[in-house]
Amino acid sequence: MAGRKISPNLALDQLVAQRIAAGESIVHLGFGESRLPVFAPLRRALTEGADRNAYGPVVGDPDTRDAVAGYFSRRRLPTEADQVIIAPGSKPLLMALQLVVGGDTLVAAPSWVTYAPQARLAGKTVLGVPIPESCGGVPDPAALRETVRAARVLGHDPRILVLTSPDNPTGTHAPDELVRELCAIAEEEDLLIVSDEIYRDILHTPGTDLLSPAEIAPRRTVVLTGLSKNLALGGWRIGAARFPTGGWGERIRADVASVASEIWSTLAGPMQSVARYAFAEPPEIRERLTADAALHGAVAGAVHRIMVDAGATCRPPTGAFYVYPDFAPLREPLAEQGITDGASLQHHLLEELGVAVLSGHHFGDRPEALRFRAATSMLYGDTPEQQRQTQTAADPLAVPHVADALVRIEQALAKLPR
Amino acid sequence: MAGRKISPNLALDQLVAQRIAAGESIVHLGFGESRLPVFAPLRRALTEGADRNAYGPVVGDPDTRDAVAGYFSRRRLPTEADQVIIAPGSKPLLMALQLVVGGDTLVAAPSWVTYAPQARLAGKTVLGVPIPESCGGVPDPAALRETVRAARVLGHDPRILVLTSPDNPTGTHAPDELVRELCAIAEEEDLLIVSDEIYRDILHTPGTDLLSPAEIAPRRTVVLTGLSKNLALGGWRIGAARFPTGGWGERIRADVASVASEIWSTLAGPMQSVARYAFAEPPEIRERLTADAALHGAVAGAVHRIMVDAGATCRPPTGAFYVYPDFAPLREPLAEQGITDGASLQHHLLEELGVAVLSGHHFGDRPEALRFRAATSMLYGDTPEQQRQTQTAADPLAVPHVADALVRIEQALAKLPR
Repeated sequence: MAGRKISPNLALDQLVAQRIAAGESIVHLGFGESRLPVFAPLRRALTEGADRNAYGPVVGDPDTRDAVAGYFSRRRLPTEADQVIIAPGSKPLLMALQLVVGGDTLVAAPSWVTYAPQARLAGKTVLGVPIPESCGGVPDPAALRETVRAARVLGHDPRILVLTSPDNPTGTHAPDELVRELCAIAEEEDLLIVSDEIYRDILHTPGTDLLSPAEIAPRRTVVLTGLSKNLALGGWRIGAARFPTGGWGERIRADVASVASEIWSTLAGPMQSVARYAFAEPPEIRERLTADAALHGAVAGAVHRIMVDAGATCRPPTGAFYVYPDFAPLREPLAEQGITDGASLQHHLLEELGVAVLSGHHFGDRPEALRFRAATSMLYGDTPEQQRQTQTAADPLAVPHVADALVRIEQALAKLPR
Repeated sequence: MAGRKISPNLALDQLVAQRIAAGESIVHLGFGESRLPVFAPLRRALTEGADRNAYGPVVGDPDTRDAVAGYFSRRRLPTEADQVIIAPGSKPLLMALQLVVGGDTLVAAPSWVTYAPQARLAGKTVLGVPIPESCGGVPDPAALRETVRAARVLGHDPRILVLTSPDNPTGTHAPDELVRELCAIAEEEDLLIVSDEIYRDILHTPGTDLLSPAEIAPRRTVVLTGLSKNLALGGWRIGAARFPTGGWGERIRADVASVASEIWSTLAGPMQSVARYAFAEPPEIRERLTADAALHGAVAGAVHRIMVDAGATCRPPTGAFYVYPDFAPLREPLAEQGITDGASLQHHLLEELGVAVLSGHHFGDRPEALRFRAATSMLYGDTPEQQRQTQTAADPLAVPHVADALVRIEQALAKLPR
């Protein structure tokens, strides 16, 4: 078990933060954090919860779970409080699911850097399935069927299918038809769907409708969410899970609660106060979510254009705050400079061009692919003041520090050999 | 993996809280929580940390780790910040240790309800070793040697030795000589010592000196601590670990950081602000620790007397806030009422006598033993006002709601058959 490494996303952030602190000039697109200030009412909710020093229920206080149930119910997923577990982030809930559900785990390739290590930590085999042309976060249906069957022939036992929409790293969301098709496969193959919807509130086009697998396959879908992305509270560690009704779902929820009681006890009381306030979505929270989603869309769109102009192919981002360019069209000129895979492209961008991104192989993509994730939410500013300026600007792309960063990225990528 | 249960300590607390809320009159001694209000400066530190919404380093911010290093250094354990990992409670750190260190786990029997389930969750065999006459939290040395050797003959691979001082459930601390003897065995048998010192600041007699295994076996001892017990912040989930210097310790720390990055990311930013303040131990914190330790000692001592008067044998408590009586002297009259083991004694006390305690078998004690843990810190009051009154009283035993509760326990236990 020796030689473990820190999750690459967090490790890169620590490294870049140290180098910037030491005086280096780096455009940091390497970390999946929404760099926005704490919304004032959330700070108030934290302070108001400061007297909550008792442990309380493992799954979360009833009033907090009730707020989370309301959040899901307003998204066409009717939910009772006793279907919910609240935790210090959705990450430990995902880990607990890997621990309590038997069999092996199917993930999209690429997908969030943590799914696969968690599954391996739980003793599972990870089966990566390529994503379709249309979007990331979900496997291509034909490839999924093939992977499931081939895995069974090899003695594996695929039982969990992880879907993410909108997704990390491609910043896209799955169209309804694709969700329906994947749910049908899950039914046929008896898979539990783990639907990571932590970016759900960050859809760039107002009025876009997202179809959750829990609407199509309610008895076999666990939904994850949290406040890290939509309300920029990554460092506050607040997550929640919604479990299916019915025997299977109830058993999984009870098992996750058991694991929770042995690993993390409960979400901190003051954070439950924050969760109760935020998941209830009073008007000021709804406005915040809408405004921030538009901001994320504007900046992701600008970075997308830069990548395409630099010669990459790249899915147009529709959600979250990522773009995932593919520099395959430049493979030959890049190879002449010794850039032959994702790792060498990441290295070249950081060391030669001063742009920090995370290579696709960290997300389970093919190592030789010339793909990386750029987290565009890192561009909003280095101080709360800058971030607030970006957040409140009519045109965030015109805010000087954002515009400067975009120019720097453009100029850096223009130096790639063509 | 189905049929998991919530940790019995947390499960009993939820059950009793529900029954009290429904109008039942129960003296709740069943949960290891320090029922004291949030100390005002801790609340301020939380509020001051409210702008910390970035993820930050997995192991904790350098300034927070520096404060923790100072805390240990003031306790004869010279420590650098880079030996420290901060986490949402010491519980996830203990879990991570079980995951990254190979082999099987030796625990005292009885010991805290979570050690054994965590080890099993990590795929380990749990080897329980009886405690000596003198104290709990640590195995009897002769029994430890015997267990290690017998386990190896059976094909097990004991590698981790968990020690707790002062301990849960007996509320005692290990004398220096015993600590030295156990460290010598750990050296001989090449065991990693996990020294859970979360109750370290709660020694009842002022000036009592506690010897940490990390002083005797520095290269093979990981020390755990937290703010849940000494500062009554269980529901805020703040813990820390101190790893040994040297190759082995550094490797274990790196591996724990890796697991941390995959399971919980980091301690919430505002909680790191609390940790930085509290572990730096300004004068008001030191006064608070001293005063609360005296309170815990006074009330635990009173409950100890009641247990002995009721016919039990019981180690006099010297630390933490527990007593662990043994009603073996009443085995015959109890058996006539069908009370033949720890579970039936716990049931009788709750259902017939209105006193909630946790049977010794939940701590890994022999099921037939007529032993239970009474958490005396639950007696300080049901409201912050009552708790503050208890906390500031010259004689906490004379505070009406405390005195009433003690009388109720006394009267209830007087109804046990003699």
